[in-house]
Amino acid sequence: MAKYKVTFLPDNKIIEIEAGSTLLQAAEKAGVLINSLCGGDGLCGECRLQVVSGRAMADKNAIAVFFKDEIEGGYVLACRTKINDNLTVRVPPKSRTEQEKIILEGTSIVYSEPEKVELHRQTGELPVSFDPPIKKVYLELLEPTLEDNASDIDRITRELSKISSYPTFEISLACLQNLTEKLRAYDWKVTVTFARHNGIGRILAIEGGDTSSKHYGLAIDVGTTTVVAQLVNLTTGKVLGAKGSHNSQAHYGEDVISRMVFACVRGSLEPLHKAVITNINHLAQSLAKENHIEIGDINAVVAAGNTTMSHFLLNMTPCSIRLEPYVPTTVVYPQIFAREVGIEINPQGILEVAPSIASYVGGDIVAGVLACGIADRPEVRCLIDIGTNGEIVIGNNEWLVCCSASAGPAFEGGGTRYGMRATRGAIEKVEIKDGKVVYETIGKAKPRGICGSGLIDTIYELVRNGIIERDGKFSTSRNDSRLITEDSETYYILANPEETENGEAISISESEIANLIKSKGAVFAAIKSLSDYVGLGFDHLETIYVAGGFGSSLNIPKAIAIGLIPDIDVKRIQFIGNSSLAGARMALTSVAAFEKSLSIARKMTNIELSNYAPFMHEFVAALFLPHTDNKLFPSVRYSR
Amino acid sequence: MAKYKVTFLPDNKIIEIEAGSTLLQAAEKAGVLINSLCGGDGLCGECRLQVVSGRAMADKNAIAVFFKDEIEGGYVLACRTKINDNLTVRVPPKSRTEQEKIILEGTSIVYSEPEKVELHRQTGELPVSFDPPIKKVYLELLEPTLEDNASDIDRITRELSKISSYPTFEISLACLQNLTEKLRAYDWKVTVTFARHNGIGRILAIEGGDTSSKHYGLAIDVGTTTVVAQLVNLTTGKVLGAKGSHNSQAHYGEDVISRMVFACVRGSLEPLHKAVITNINHLAQSLAKENHIEIGDINAVVAAGNTTMSHFLLNMTPCSIRLEPYVPTTVVYPQIFAREVGIEINPQGILEVAPSIASYVGGDIVAGVLACGIADRPEVRCLIDIGTNGEIVIGNNEWLVCCSASAGPAFEGGGTRYGMRATRGAIEKVEIKDGKVVYETIGKAKPRGICGSGLIDTIYELVRNGIIERDGKFSTSRNDSRLITEDSETYYILANPEETENGEAISISESEIANLIKSKGAVFAAIKSLSDYVGLGFDHLETIYVAGGFGSSLNIPKAIAIGLIPDIDVKRIQFIGNSSLAGARMALTSVAAFEKSLSIARKMTNIELSNYAPFMHEFVAALFLPHTDNKLFPSVRYSR
Repeated sequence: MAKYKVTFLPDNKIIEIEAGSTLLQAAEKAGVLINSLCGGDGLCGECRLQVVSGRAMADKNAIAVFFKDEIEGGYVLACRTKINDNLTVRVPPKSRTEQEKIILEGTSIVYSEPEKVELHRQTGELPVSFDPPIKKVYLELLEPTLEDNASDIDRITRELSKISSYPTFEISLACLQNLTEKLRAYDWKVTVTFARHNGIGRILAIEGGDTSSKHYGLAIDVGTTTVVAQLVNLTTGKVLGAKGSHNSQAHYGEDVISRMVFACVRGSLEPLHKAVITNINHLAQSLAKENHIEIGDINAVVAAGNTTMSHFLLNMTPCSIRLEPYVPTTVVYPQIFAREVGIEINPQGILEVAPSIASYVGGDIVAGVLACGIADRPEVRCLIDIGTNGEIVIGNNEWLVCCSASAGPAFEGGGTRYGMRATRGAIEKVEIKDGKVVYETIGKAKPRGICGSGLIDTIYELVRNGIIERDGKFSTSRNDSRLITEDSETYYILANPEETENGEAISISESEIANLIKSKGAVFAAIKSLSDYVGLGFDHLETIYVAGGFGSSLNIPKAIAIGLIPDIDVKRIQFIGNSSLAGARMALTSVAAFEKSLSIARKMTNIELSNYAPFMHEFVAALFLPHTDNKLFPSVRYSR
Repeated sequence: MAKYKVTFLPDNKIIEIEAGSTLLQAAEKAGVLINSLCGGDGLCGECRLQVVSGRAMADKNAIAVFFKDEIEGGYVLACRTKINDNLTVRVPPKSRTEQEKIILEGTSIVYSEPEKVELHRQTGELPVSFDPPIKKVYLELLEPTLEDNASDIDRITRELSKISSYPTFEISLACLQNLTEKLRAYDWKVTVTFARHNGIGRILAIEGGDTSSKHYGLAIDVGTTTVVAQLVNLTTGKVLGAKGSHNSQAHYGEDVISRMVFACVRGSLEPLHKAVITNINHLAQSLAKENHIEIGDINAVVAAGNTTMSHFLLNMTPCSIRLEPYVPTTVVYPQIFAREVGIEINPQGILEVAPSIASYVGGDIVAGVLACGIADRPEVRCLIDIGTNGEIVIGNNEWLVCCSASAGPAFEGGGTRYGMRATRGAIEKVEIKDGKVVYETIGKAKPRGICGSGLIDTIYELVRNGIIERDGKFSTSRNDSRLITEDSETYYILANPEETENGEAISISESEIANLIKSKGAVFAAIKSLSDYVGLGFDHLETIYVAGGFGSSLNIPKAIAIGLIPDIDVKRIQFIGNSSLAGARMALTSVAAFEKSLSIARKMTNIELSNYAPFMHEFVAALFLPHTDNKLFPSVRYSR
């Protein structure tokens, strides 16, 4: 069979391979690690390569995931491209498998013995005892006698009643249908998996012998941009690992609205549903493999996401969420078998989805409130979660109000040419001094792009140095060698070609800065509107928690200085990272937390900003650095 | 194609039919109505014919359902026998389709308007309002607005909350997944089917438009010998019709024990499960057809049966019921979709099975107690249900005790050569005077056999006339032309060949009489044991209800005279027919009755007779007509 030579740039690794092999197989042979979340199905789009020379046979069906300029630039999917010529291909940084630095939580979690485990949080005093809503217990039953010939299932439930508070238990027919045989085959020793369901116990599985230690769960944050999963040992409470991936729905639209349009106008809900399920399955498989556990021993998934993500996850149309009057199918999601939506864990394993409040305030926010403990104390506190939407909650243990504003994907690494997630090689800190740019990247690697915290720093530094004006426009008076103009767009160079991983400059353009100002303006306007709505100025907020996927850290003073978050004492502001994931994990590991998530959802009042006149006024006022009203940012003094 | 001539006896109908046709097809063509419950699958064994001349090609696989002497006598299944010769066949009376006189209930039921319907019963004062646990309601919802943009499902459940008492509602993912589209396609007009489930509401289906009037249910008595179904309009409460059939499980064993042996020793649970499901499906189809309704509009089935029948129905092994210490898989059966066990009604329709007490006191007794109202008043009353088992309950609104004794199938028409169910042609009343036998048959037809009430009369008349002694043996001193001896067995001729439908004499043998005495002895011993156990003599029982499939009526004085039921004032004894079916229908049409069935099951104490020493003594003492202790039957005076 004919063989061809494939050269991988920039590593310059060369191999020979049989005709008809895929570029992905060639990369594997060459030891070039390429992302492939979907396992080569042409779905995830993570394995894109640029063909520099030679004729590649790309699968036409996979071409839809590329932007026009990428197609023109010779980009192909490694997994869907067969080799029938000598090829030279370039591996772009985004396609490389790197050790990800996933933004999990900005909180420290201490687990001790399973019986008395408590979750200590920097952010509050909420003690959550380890008491998962789905449990596995090993029972050694007494054999029945004529004096005690209760039915087989009663023999089990009366033992379960001793160790749980459920008044009764429901059981499926399938669990009953072979119970009698099983009890006798295993000498009355069985392991029962049961969950809290509508206030009573629900028996999910009865296995022979002692399998109680094989009991794991997944906490999942289903973000618009990123899907992150944590594997938890549900016997000990220990977090075994975490993994994240791009949300593959991005192929159908970068933001929530464009995905809804894809689902509703084309009527294609299924691909969006399948994309996120595929993400979750790959994360689960990968976590199981790395931790040497069987995927079938994962018995529970608790997922938190915004309302649209939750609808996609459950294969429910989001089409009425999109249009006025913004009505979701449901805000409380039923406990289902994970298999019902194609999640491949234990077939008897369950999926719980954190309850939403309204179309644009989802379970991620409920999980966030749960995680930072706002609903636990009388002091009024605030949560600002900046994802693709900015969601704001203000409240205490008696009341909660919330709102949501579209922020765009910028702070999560989307929407800008060099924006990226907070993974290895992302510029996360920036300082500009005397025309020099000093930056730090995640993992101290050569820069590949800029993550959210890097963008906030960049804007701050650009205005502080007078490179941009307070309105975000480049100062016409400046003469800076880092400022270049191409195709009538002006860019500021953050990293020169020789510094970066792929030899291309990393820059930010004026229109990208304008978009970032719109994003921060929307978030701030939402905070201001909600604060005004409840009649409490920023000074009345004991603590402001800032959550989001900016990066591993967030420079709070700089975030204040660009007008993203209110100008209060920085000691009262805490960056808590991915609070949605933290809340999902709390619900996975504690019945009390799970119940609290339901009560938070019931208690929260949503203020529909699209219906709230002052918001647009606040938004326009916030399209300035830091704000048109300087009195709102008394501490902000640009050194110029 | 070759044609053959088939002659059907005794009608002497002759037709010609193509080679390869089945005898069942030939019978149809000839207008000879033959039973076929299974629709020609060779399963139900109802269509057996006797080939008198010609060579029939019987399907060997179907031969197992025959007794040895039937095979030798040329019996075949009409549905499994192909015609390849000129044939003459005889249709035995049992294979004929006859208008059945199904023993439903000995109670009068008056339904008025659906809102205020009450069930008036002869037997008690229990008013049961018409309020089915599964309901269908038509809702015209208000369109959402920005001011009221509750989720789609919340819009529905808040309406349901106004018309029901359920605190919350659970809903399946399947119901949610297309809800948003449906509400908008049907202009916010939908019909919701919901049921009571674990104390909350369970939404089973949401249909576009108004389908609320298409709402039917089935009450089913799953007896060991007979399966009877009643079709009820769940919008009006009206009983539309009833149908019964032999329980096809009889092919695997006449009584409960032999069926358990078949399931457990051969390990073949499935055929027994399938047999009863097939019976139910045929009854449902037949009732739907006759009443011109769609089978898919049947939304609920409530079944009552003994514990083994309930286990077979749900495809659960009865193997540990059979052996000491007699442990069932469960006594409370989960609410399931009827489709989960293969019952072909609405795919979202549910099956509820009346709860059992113990292995040998089943849901039929719970339903019976519900129907006769024993648990409703402070007076102590007694229910005697005589099926294949005799089950006894004594109690009032505070306590209930019960027990069970194996009676055999004799009183239901099984086990004896000429025993039959209470259908057309069954001898149901017998009087013997001066050597003459005067009998009445159901439907005034030529006699085909004897049903339970006929057998009780027969034994009474034989002993009253001195034809048998008090021990059940034929008097050796008698010289009676009706007494004949064949193969060293003595028979008494009840109907001469010229009187009967098929020209064969109908008789009863000494060993059959001995079996009947054992049956009545077991029942009476159980009543006596339970009465002694609670320390209340028969005089303390305000009323004794007698239930069972004896026939349309039961001659109470004769039943007392043979020692089957206690000798108390006949005014205090009521024959109530099929109380299991009556109870199932009450549970189908009333939430309160349904809840009461659960509380009856919880409240009832079962006395295990196999574990209760005095029972065997009572049994031996009862093997006499009426009893070895004449003082127990002070009113019984045989006129001799």
